[in-house]
Amino acid sequence: MDRENHANNGEDERDLENEGLRDGKEIERNWSGRSEKNMTFREPLLVKRVNTTSQIAIVGSNVCPIESLDYEIVENELFKQDWRSRKKIQIFQYILLKWAFALIIGLGTGLVGFFNNIAVENIAGYKLLLTTDLMSKQRYFAAFAAFAGCNVLLATAAGALCALIAPAAAGSGIPEVKAYLNGIDAYSILAPSTLFVKIFGSILGVSAGFVVGKEGPMVHTGACIASILGQGGSRRYHLTWKWLRYFKNDRDRRDLITCGAAAGVAAAFRAPVGGVLFALEEAASCFTDAAMWLTPRELYWLTISQYLVEFMMHNVAKCSSLENVFTTAVVAIVLRAFIEYCTTGKCGLFGQGGLIMYDVSSAQATYSGADILAVILLGVIGGLLGSLYNFLIDKVLRIYSIINERGASFKILLVITIALLTSCCAFGLPWLAECQACPTDLSVSCPTVGESGNYESFQCSSGYYNDLASLFLNTNDDAIRNLFSTSTKKEFNISSLFIFFGAIYFLGIITYGIAIPSGLFIPVILAGACYGRLVGRLFESISQLDAGLYALLGAASFLGGTMRMTVSLCVILLELTNDLLLLPLVMLVLLVSKTVADSFNKGVYDQIVKLKGLPYMEAHAEPYMRQLVARDVVTGPLIMFSGIEKVGTIVHALTTTGHNGFPVIDEPPFTESAELCGIVLRSHLLVLLKGKNFLRERVISGEDILQKYAAFDFAKPGSGKGIKLEDIDFDDEELEMYIDLHPITNASPYTVVETMSLAKAAILFRQLGLRHMCVVPKSQGRPPIVGILTRHDFMPEHILGLYPHVKPHKRF
Amino acid sequence: MDRENHANNGEDERDLENEGLRDGKEIERNWSGRSEKNMTFREPLLVKRVNTTSQIAIVGSNVCPIESLDYEIVENELFKQDWRSRKKIQIFQYILLKWAFALIIGLGTGLVGFFNNIAVENIAGYKLLLTTDLMSKQRYFAAFAAFAGCNVLLATAAGALCALIAPAAAGSGIPEVKAYLNGIDAYSILAPSTLFVKIFGSILGVSAGFVVGKEGPMVHTGACIASILGQGGSRRYHLTWKWLRYFKNDRDRRDLITCGAAAGVAAAFRAPVGGVLFALEEAASCFTDAAMWLTPRELYWLTISQYLVEFMMHNVAKCSSLENVFTTAVVAIVLRAFIEYCTTGKCGLFGQGGLIMYDVSSAQATYSGADILAVILLGVIGGLLGSLYNFLIDKVLRIYSIINERGASFKILLVITIALLTSCCAFGLPWLAECQACPTDLSVSCPTVGESGNYESFQCSSGYYNDLASLFLNTNDDAIRNLFSTSTKKEFNISSLFIFFGAIYFLGIITYGIAIPSGLFIPVILAGACYGRLVGRLFESISQLDAGLYALLGAASFLGGTMRMTVSLCVILLELTNDLLLLPLVMLVLLVSKTVADSFNKGVYDQIVKLKGLPYMEAHAEPYMRQLVARDVVTGPLIMFSGIEKVGTIVHALTTTGHNGFPVIDEPPFTESAELCGIVLRSHLLVLLKGKNFLRERVISGEDILQKYAAFDFAKPGSGKGIKLEDIDFDDEELEMYIDLHPITNASPYTVVETMSLAKAAILFRQLGLRHMCVVPKSQGRPPIVGILTRHDFMPEHILGLYPHVKPHKRF
Repeated sequence: MDRENHANNGEDERDLENEGLRDGKEIERNWSGRSEKNMTFREPLLVKRVNTTSQIAIVGSNVCPIESLDYEIVENELFKQDWRSRKKIQIFQYILLKWAFALIIGLGTGLVGFFNNIAVENIAGYKLLLTTDLMSKQRYFAAFAAFAGCNVLLATAAGALCALIAPAAAGSGIPEVKAYLNGIDAYSILAPSTLFVKIFGSILGVSAGFVVGKEGPMVHTGACIASILGQGGSRRYHLTWKWLRYFKNDRDRRDLITCGAAAGVAAAFRAPVGGVLFALEEAASCFTDAAMWLTPRELYWLTISQYLVEFMMHNVAKCSSLENVFTTAVVAIVLRAFIEYCTTGKCGLFGQGGLIMYDVSSAQATYSGADILAVILLGVIGGLLGSLYNFLIDKVLRIYSIINERGASFKILLVITIALLTSCCAFGLPWLAECQACPTDLSVSCPTVGESGNYESFQCSSGYYNDLASLFLNTNDDAIRNLFSTSTKKEFNISSLFIFFGAIYFLGIITYGIAIPSGLFIPVILAGACYGRLVGRLFESISQLDAGLYALLGAASFLGGTMRMTVSLCVILLELTNDLLLLPLVMLVLLVSKTVADSFNKGVYDQIVKLKGLPYMEAHAEPYMRQLVARDVVTGPLIMFSGIEKVGTIVHALTTTGHNGFPVIDEPPFTESAELCGIVLRSHLLVLLKGKNFLRERVISGEDILQKYAAFDFAKPGSGKGIKLEDIDFDDEELEMYIDLHPITNASPYTVVETMSLAKAAILFRQLGLRHMCVVPKSQGRPPIVGILTRHDFMPEHILGLYPHVKPHKRF
Repeated sequence: MDRENHANNGEDERDLENEGLRDGKEIERNWSGRSEKNMTFREPLLVKRVNTTSQIAIVGSNVCPIESLDYEIVENELFKQDWRSRKKIQIFQYILLKWAFALIIGLGTGLVGFFNNIAVENIAGYKLLLTTDLMSKQRYFAAFAAFAGCNVLLATAAGALCALIAPAAAGSGIPEVKAYLNGIDAYSILAPSTLFVKIFGSILGVSAGFVVGKEGPMVHTGACIASILGQGGSRRYHLTWKWLRYFKNDRDRRDLITCGAAAGVAAAFRAPVGGVLFALEEAASCFTDAAMWLTPRELYWLTISQYLVEFMMHNVAKCSSLENVFTTAVVAIVLRAFIEYCTTGKCGLFGQGGLIMYDVSSAQATYSGADILAVILLGVIGGLLGSLYNFLIDKVLRIYSIINERGASFKILLVITIALLTSCCAFGLPWLAECQACPTDLSVSCPTVGESGNYESFQCSSGYYNDLASLFLNTNDDAIRNLFSTSTKKEFNISSLFIFFGAIYFLGIITYGIAIPSGLFIPVILAGACYGRLVGRLFESISQLDAGLYALLGAASFLGGTMRMTVSLCVILLELTNDLLLLPLVMLVLLVSKTVADSFNKGVYDQIVKLKGLPYMEAHAEPYMRQLVARDVVTGPLIMFSGIEKVGTIVHALTTTGHNGFPVIDEPPFTESAELCGIVLRSHLLVLLKGKNFLRERVISGEDILQKYAAFDFAKPGSGKGIKLEDIDFDDEELEMYIDLHPITNASPYTVVETMSLAKAAILFRQLGLRHMCVVPKSQGRPPIVGILTRHDFMPEHILGLYPHVKPHKRF
């Protein structure tokens, strides 16, 4: 029986059914319908259904080809042989190396975090000191020139680094890391150049006064550091070591990268516990919609929860938690050591600015009916503003991607434009505010002397301060601290808060997407805290809550409206205020803002991932998937190999397709009937082809191969490396020879029957972190495999392209 | 082709292979071996391999039949019809009811928690007051008589309740709840009578002075309350409501019970955040080995982490997290309201005793090299004592189960014996301690006046106190607080601590397993804190750490040694001490104690679950499973039904087997060849049989059935209810008729190919929370299903019974 016909036999029936669906008729795929269909004449129709979903995506601000990761353990003969022969010493080496890597990741990320903070505080501090100095001398134009000049210079440097060296480093990096952990790989996501640009670009960008955070980039940085360690060394730089081979697979690499992301969180927020929590969340494979409860004292913990939830959504495999604890503890200890060193004044302007904690627990949280009204209002505002924010970010990103496509110079120009705009806002808008008299009962100096504080003098005379300048002419961290300050009800004017909110809201939207490393969290907290305080001011006559708590609730509502988390924020704020009685308020504001925002659009990170074209597998199945079964989305024609296959056939298949997995079928005379042997991977085939242990006859030669190769020869090389088919030359004689694929065939592939509901298949695929899922027939007399499902076959574009009459949101 | 032969065809080959393995020869299941085997002559051997693993287990102190839960969505025609026709109002009803239930669970559990605390404080307080009163009058024998009399009385009441009404309420309940969430059901685990006894038995048992905790029982109580709500009403008591039908399935019930367990944690520890965390952990389906980070202030959070980790291990499906937040918030608010009411003195002796928080953050955590030595020592001690504890508990439980089997009177006698022994220890041992002079710089009165405090006078004269009596003649909660007290270095004598430790260690071991509700956590914390303080005393000359911190580290080490958690404890203690620099110490002590203990035996809960015979699915696969493939453990003969089957055949199959799922095969003439249609469940078959919509001819009649039944007719009834086959009568004519099974056949069963490695199959089974997994053939010309795997087929007893020569711990 011909192999090609096998595949088609399976497909005829499918196509008949598909026609029905394509015509817009609703298919009754029930027992009776099916039984009748099975009796109809099978037309030997040969429709090749191709999956046309894009194999490229935007990483940072660049378009890259993407691949899927493979978390499945390839249980072939070589693996089993290796597993049986593995000695205790090797297990010991592996564990030792894992701990050593955890230490290195912790140390590295801690150092980078410290360096980042100290650099930002010093660069931005110098810039701000220069400006205020000139301002105090009433040389206003010189001050603006200095301020804007510094900003544009720093921004240009950041933009140039990013555009010329590593476009993948643009943006927050969270969507990319999220995608990686979901199983999507692109070389540039975690490349060394990305790391370099992420570190220095982030420092320059934050120092340049952009409305961006450094937390997202920090997470990306941690992941990059871990990824470099997991590459298994480099032959080019003679950095090879036998032990490193243990990490040459996607499972262990993913563990390391989870570790690195956790270290990044820890470094960004000085939150070792949060970092580990984050990493542990990674370990929760099938975490679906839930969120996580934290242990914060500072509002920055909010940020962690963000990452937590973000990352929680796409966990695939087990992660070894103990190393993560270790890593983040190391980060914390490194940071702490440096900070203690710095508080002695040896680090320049760096003081408490970088690694701060917010504490509003001093404020009393008793509340009345009016407060509840205010909180509901906050929630509604947060929901509306949040969904509008997401909508606008999406539009802006689309426009920017057109600009960014035109080349590096356009990218840099865009960065400079935004930098100028930001500078004008930051320097120009404070002029709109009136000078206010300093309160008399202060423990700090007013107006502020030195780099940071609540009371900037700006153009005001002694004894007066400009509240808007206190927000604009500070680092973003200090601005947040100012907004959260309790017992300072009247510090900020309503008009000032209004102006600041408007500026930050729109600057935040237009800044994300330019070619610099830019976190999204700080803009959201800033804007949220601002309108929270604003609402607090409006209700101050009838409300008992402190303005700082209002700022907190505002930040929560905006976070809820953009990021759409509820549970985690709830507890964080509970912990933050240390008062259980505030819990209902926080729950309320989050529920309201999320509910309001959800009726408009999706969360901001979901939108960005979709916009970037990353084939992200959701944890849940879409409603329309319930109408379809697994075989309905299988694409073809299916290319299969025999257990002992002709070299030419393999080379031809590898050349003409981009497939990464091929089913292997044992056929007569080696077996009584065709039977499914398993799946071979492209990379394994290439190793075997390169070795050229071919046979002249179609005979079993697996033992030979088992002796000639070890499992590590088939280990997955570092990203961007690996054997390429073009590099292997075959002469005509070789192409006519045979090769035994049994030793490298994964004999335990995951399978579903063809009638498995697509929704169930999608959840299974996602839950197990698969790259290939075999679809097997439900009846006898058919080839033993119907097709292979990959990530791309579950994408809505593909499914809705095949069945345009399916209504994406209808449930019938 | 005969169906019976089909099944055997698949089995012959298997049996040939099995013979080899049974003979002790190692099977080379590699490609070449297999290919040869496939060519050998197939002997028509008919070996029926039966799974003999026990279908009963010990629940509490009673033997019960067990069943598996089924978290899989049964996607049959009826479900699809129902899903398509479900209206918005029904979805709204469902959500509303879920929130209402969350509220009720929260309120109920909060009330029970409050009631429990107030009752224990009052009963135990009265008893202790009476005793100290008589002691102060120097009527020592009367004091002992009163003390022991009260204890025995209370113990007898608790034992009688437990032995006569609900033996399932004995023990901590954690293993049972853990098993339930792993997918093992037994009616009595969460029955109303269990709830009743758990509440009152726990109060009586704790009041009786046993070395038991009330936290485990509290978790069980919460789960019971939730379970009763999820029963879908009761026809007997006319408590039926159409809305309740939404919860008539294992998925929704499990959500509720998770909620209830979370509420239990919240109530036990006044820890709303921990409760939710716990519940969220429930949501993490595939949490493997990781642990969870908490946000505690009190050591009781340790307890939460215990539950966290315990429960984390066996999560199966998604849990709706938001309701859990809500529930635990309700619990917290209820408790808080009551406590505020009680602090005004209106609740009798109930004061701060019941719902306490420990705070050692006042103690400085600077440490030197000597401290590290002390901590390593603590870790080693914790590991050794922990594994010994587990070993002894196992032995004692085995002895007790023999006693408990003899009947209720023996159970009660055992309870009384232990109560007497405990009383003698508690009253007798303090005589060994010398009276100590009260410290002069105290803010509390010494000796203590009233019910609880650090300084019990016992036999001593005024100005002196008996340190051992301060530990023994107090509730366990107060004893823990005394041990954790900081800045009281010399309060307890080394000899006293030694005596107390010995007594508590052995009383803890012999108390668990008697027929009262008894938590395991308090004994462990007590003993650990005790030897921690002891080590602190030994190192006091060279150590800088506070004795309270030593007690904390000791408790951690013992918890690590018995429960084998590391990560969670680590952060809890970090939070507890609020000093990052202590983190390495805590990590160290936990790593050491876990490592030491792991070299001896398993964690205590794992042991108990195994001892009880609960078929618990581990998250990881055993090494020997890699040597086997799925078909190797399939039992037979497989009973299959035709798509349209004779009633008699079905009745016969249901009568003669206990199977819960049967594959359905469509055969010619309805299809071209035999094809797998799906799986039908016993409960669904019974509904169809009871309806008696039989056919005289073998024709398709599915549409009829779809019209006559709704999906809710097939909803899973509450535990212990449901249709029984014995209740349906069939006449001979009916037995000859046919029934169309298509509408109730789950057409999307999960499948693995027969050559799937057993290890992979086991992990898949566990991860998806399955009850049945179909094994499909890998080749053509065979019946479309080889067998069905259930939970029991993955049990080591079964596998090692089939292949006795497989070495359980060896890897090849």
